[in-house]
Amino acid sequence: MDQPIGNIYIVVAPSGAGKTSLVTALLQAEPSVELSISYSTRPARKGEIDGKHYHFVDKATFDAMIDRGDFLEYAEVYGNYYGTSAPWIRSRLEVGQDILLEIDWQGAEQVRKVFPGAIGIFIAPPSIEELERRLRGRDTDTEEVILRRLASARAEIDKIAEYDYIVVNDDFERARLDLISIVRARRLRSEVQCRRLAEMFRHMGTAGAQ
Amino acid sequence: MDQPIGNIYIVVAPSGAGKTSLVTALLQAEPSVELSISYSTRPARKGEIDGKHYHFVDKATFDAMIDRGDFLEYAEVYGNYYGTSAPWIRSRLEVGQDILLEIDWQGAEQVRKVFPGAIGIFIAPPSIEELERRLRGRDTDTEEVILRRLASARAEIDKIAEYDYIVVNDDFERARLDLISIVRARRLRSEVQCRRLAEMFRHMGTAGAQ
Repeated sequence: MDQPIGNIYIVVAPSGAGKTSLVTALLQAEPSVELSISYSTRPARKGEIDGKHYHFVDKATFDAMIDRGDFLEYAEVYGNYYGTSAPWIRSRLEVGQDILLEIDWQGAEQVRKVFPGAIGIFIAPPSIEELERRLRGRDTDTEEVILRRLASARAEIDKIAEYDYIVVNDDFERARLDLISIVRARRLRSEVQCRRLAEMFRHMGTAGAQ
Repeated sequence: MDQPIGNIYIVVAPSGAGKTSLVTALLQAEPSVELSISYSTRPARKGEIDGKHYHFVDKATFDAMIDRGDFLEYAEVYGNYYGTSAPWIRSRLEVGQDILLEIDWQGAEQVRKVFPGAIGIFIAPPSIEELERRLRGRDTDTEEVILRRLASARAEIDKIAEYDYIVVNDDFERARLDLISIVRARRLRSEVQCRRLAEMFRHMGTAGAQ
């Protein structure tokens, strides 16, 4: 089988940089990019659809997946388990699907070990002062949490060169277009186009004239 | 001196693929990309501005530039000379300017020898049939010229994998956004951003907290 055509995008940002809004806007503009769906042992809530919001599995199934080494990363939160499945991602890439992972930088490092071609995108705030303003504006965190988040942000920004792309979210609309451009441009690379449109280009080349 | 920040974009397309309209639209949307200005011995026509439409030089100056090996490529057309100057491009790149060259594939090969980092973009028609329809629709070429252009197009498409990006111009607006995305995304690569915004990221990192 050919190398998969799909890309993995890993979007990482310090808390308060606006990642969730930007990713939502990207997925809306580029529906061909699919948000990675986690596996979870949490019972489905009303309205949640298996395979859309989560892959809902029981604890025995989840444990078997851990044992098989299926998870790129997994964690326990309030007694429920959540994990990202490598075989699921691989199956999506193989049919040409682009996948987006919204994870933290430790998760990103894990994913890159298994998928070295994954494309890392870091969303940076325009300044630490602005990040602090946004975090305080949310009015949800204690002073201690805010200071911890700011310290984490500084540490994450020290590692910014490890990503493939950096989007500075000073203006939402501009940052949105930046994110869309990254995804569009990756699909236009000739190795991707030549694989996707091989038959068309063969027909248009000198071979097609015979 | 640091490596120049500016990029060279080389846009190549078979005749009739819609290159000129697309490049014009790109330059309008992204004014920070500058069309390469050729040197010419042709006398300036009414309204033409030196340094904007061409760098107008006399034959002696042009010859001296040939002798110095300044030209990436040059050609004689109806007794006048036209050429692309490597030192001029280099001076623009060094101040962070992005340059776009609208040349043919032989020119592109020449440029890549001197600037291996130049980014090659090929604009493909959606099909040879559509290209033929467009060429006939222009109603400017003889049957012989049309057939020659179609044969050249097939030969150029055989070499499509040598480019960095391929944009298929089936829908103008989509192709326009594709071209803009390529330029935007190049600027978002972390090596570009880390150089351009070094001071900002240093201040935002742990070093800035001390």
